[in-house]
Amino acid sequence: MSDPTFELARDLIACHSVTPEDGGCMEIIGARLKPLGFTLEYINRNGVTNLWARRGTTAPLFVFAGHTDVVPTGPLDKWTSPPFAPEIRDGMLYGRGTADMKSSLAASVTAVEAFLAAHPDYPCSLGFLLTSDEEGDATDGTVAVVDVLKARGESIDFCIIGEPTSVDTLGDMIKNGRRGSLSGVLTVKGIQCHIAYPEKGRNPIHEAAPALAELAATEWDRGNEYYQPTTWQISNIHGGTGATNVVPGSVEVKFNFRFSTASTPEGLQTRLCSILDKHKLDYDIKWTLGARPFLTGRGPLADAASAAIREVCGIDTELSTTGGTSDGRFIADICKQMLEIGPVNATSHKIDECIAVDSFPQLSAIYHRILEQLLVVSH
Amino acid sequence: MSDPTFELARDLIACHSVTPEDGGCMEIIGARLKPLGFTLEYINRNGVTNLWARRGTTAPLFVFAGHTDVVPTGPLDKWTSPPFAPEIRDGMLYGRGTADMKSSLAASVTAVEAFLAAHPDYPCSLGFLLTSDEEGDATDGTVAVVDVLKARGESIDFCIIGEPTSVDTLGDMIKNGRRGSLSGVLTVKGIQCHIAYPEKGRNPIHEAAPALAELAATEWDRGNEYYQPTTWQISNIHGGTGATNVVPGSVEVKFNFRFSTASTPEGLQTRLCSILDKHKLDYDIKWTLGARPFLTGRGPLADAASAAIREVCGIDTELSTTGGTSDGRFIADICKQMLEIGPVNATSHKIDECIAVDSFPQLSAIYHRILEQLLVVSH
Ligand SMILES: [Zn+2]
Ligand SMILES: [Zn+2]
Repeated sequence: MSDPTFELARDLIACHSVTPEDGGCMEIIGARLKPLGFTLEYINRNGVTNLWARRGTTAPLFVFAGHTDVVPTGPLDKWTSPPFAPEIRDGMLYGRGTADMKSSLAASVTAVEAFLAAHPDYPCSLGFLLTSDEEGDATDGTVAVVDVLKARGESIDFCIIGEPTSVDTLGDMIKNGRRGSLSGVLTVKGIQCHIAYPEKGRNPIHEAAPALAELAATEWDRGNEYYQPTTWQISNIHGGTGATNVVPGSVEVKFNFRFSTASTPEGLQTRLCSILDKHKLDYDIKWTLGARPFLTGRGPLADAASAAIREVCGIDTELSTTGGTSDGRFIADICKQMLEIGPVNATSHKIDECIAVDSFPQLSAIYHRILEQLLVVSH
Repeated sequence: MSDPTFELARDLIACHSVTPEDGGCMEIIGARLKPLGFTLEYINRNGVTNLWARRGTTAPLFVFAGHTDVVPTGPLDKWTSPPFAPEIRDGMLYGRGTADMKSSLAASVTAVEAFLAAHPDYPCSLGFLLTSDEEGDATDGTVAVVDVLKARGESIDFCIIGEPTSVDTLGDMIKNGRRGSLSGVLTVKGIQCHIAYPEKGRNPIHEAAPALAELAATEWDRGNEYYQPTTWQISNIHGGTGATNVVPGSVEVKFNFRFSTASTPEGLQTRLCSILDKHKLDYDIKWTLGARPFLTGRGPLADAASAAIREVCGIDTELSTTGGTSDGRFIADICKQMLEIGPVNATSHKIDECIAVDSFPQLSAIYHRILEQLLVVSH
């Protein structure tokens, strides 16, 4: 197969870039961007390498964001062909990172090349925000670049993240937001005693049970046009000394909200605590806000994406906010409109990860058409 | 101090009999019983030595039951005097087993000696049921002797167990029963899933919570004249994979009933399961019946004990069924009336275990007066 996106993707997939390693990907991409007039800036933090590449200073700024790192391969002997030796079989390209998300990176580079070839002097700015710390802790990757841009007052008008969002065929689903994640470790305190003398203590498991039942039955919100309702789930509960004749002194409950833009973290915290207070529990909670939710409603970017997908793939795409968190949670802080658009997600993080070879020119064309629609046609 | 009960107790306390060792105690006691006309029978099971000593074949049969083993000493350097070297200080005798329950064993032997000296040919039978497997597993001690007696059709009319039952002063409390103990390990099953997609699974902690709340709030019975109401307590609850982004597939709950004679184990099991069923839980339970409850209401033995305590100690004793389980749970199977009567319990199982030296002649006198009241005066 001869296609510039396919060829670049193949080179990137051949890089050993298990998180948090970049494996040379940014160098390959940087070498393509520099001749186009991009200024390359490495923004490193705590040993993580991040690349911020920008061309032009005129508004609007359109950015492709993504990660060069991949998840570990798992057992090598389970792979039909080696994960870092990309191979085509039956119309599919196999290799770690084909779906998540080196093909999208390649497509964004070739789309920008094609766009600039047609409109070398169009008044707008283009950018690439690349990290190799997305699949791991994500503590010094995209968030580090956003911190620097924010400090400079540099904001982004439009952003596309190439995460694999398609379900069955390329373009059938894109993400216009992600739910927030708010976690808590709740410790309910009682008074330890011998089980034959429960009146001498207070059983924290007994005291917690009705409160947990009420929390599990609570409707936190009804979601909105784009979001399912907020969910609250307990992941772990542990209480007891191991001895079967002792009422324990405390019980620990770990829980997590996945919340929509119909709720705020502060509102959820207040409501949860008021239920615990109503049940007169003696407790404390350690909170962790993993991600705020973000949302790009219908508007210029979503319209351009829908039109581009209809044109290239012949289908109507679906906007969705389901799934886990992404680096979009960080970028949302400095970006007005953001979408995740990428190939079929089915084999991400799995053995024999792959995407259809047809996807390479199509994904590049989608990105290219979005740039045209948004920056040229609509102006 | 010169008193036959004190002297025998001192000899027994000097025996190293940490459970399940007898340390020579049964030999000492047997040597006192044999000259009185008792037939000694060792009923051993799985390496545990038990002594069944009986004098006479005429009804009624009056038995003293007890254990020669003691709990471990704990750190020796915390004891003011060595635990197996009995020592008097300030009117108290110190040593492991003084309270629980070598002093009672000594008092029962001297009481029988005194009784037989006064009534050598009175038409009744006397017995001693001794084990050194009470403080440990209690699987081959008293229960083994009861199994043998039951197989022979040998039943007991009256029994006194010398467990330390007094609270502040000798005789202020005796036990006329003990609650039963019924334990369960409940596993509530759900379907594991990622916490971002709770609709793909079923959270067993959420499903269990309202059922546990209802169980904790349930009135199982109201007790009766002698018993506090039955209690139900969770000792341990564990659910979760450790990961904070996974809804677990199951949760395990360990619980225990301490139940009065107002309930049966079968009734409690049925009611608990019906609450779980009402909440439509998918569960299983492993049940363990630790002890059935037993009760000796007011009647000849309780009246004789109250009268004897009033006479010897000048106080009205209180009948109680509180506290943990005892070997009485086994003896109840072949015995019509049974009481636990012994010294002050405060230091049992503790460092510097002790009882007042006054207790030796008094406890012997209480046992002696009970024998007189029950076997001679009332006939
Ligand atoms: Zn990804
Ligand atoms: Zn004892």
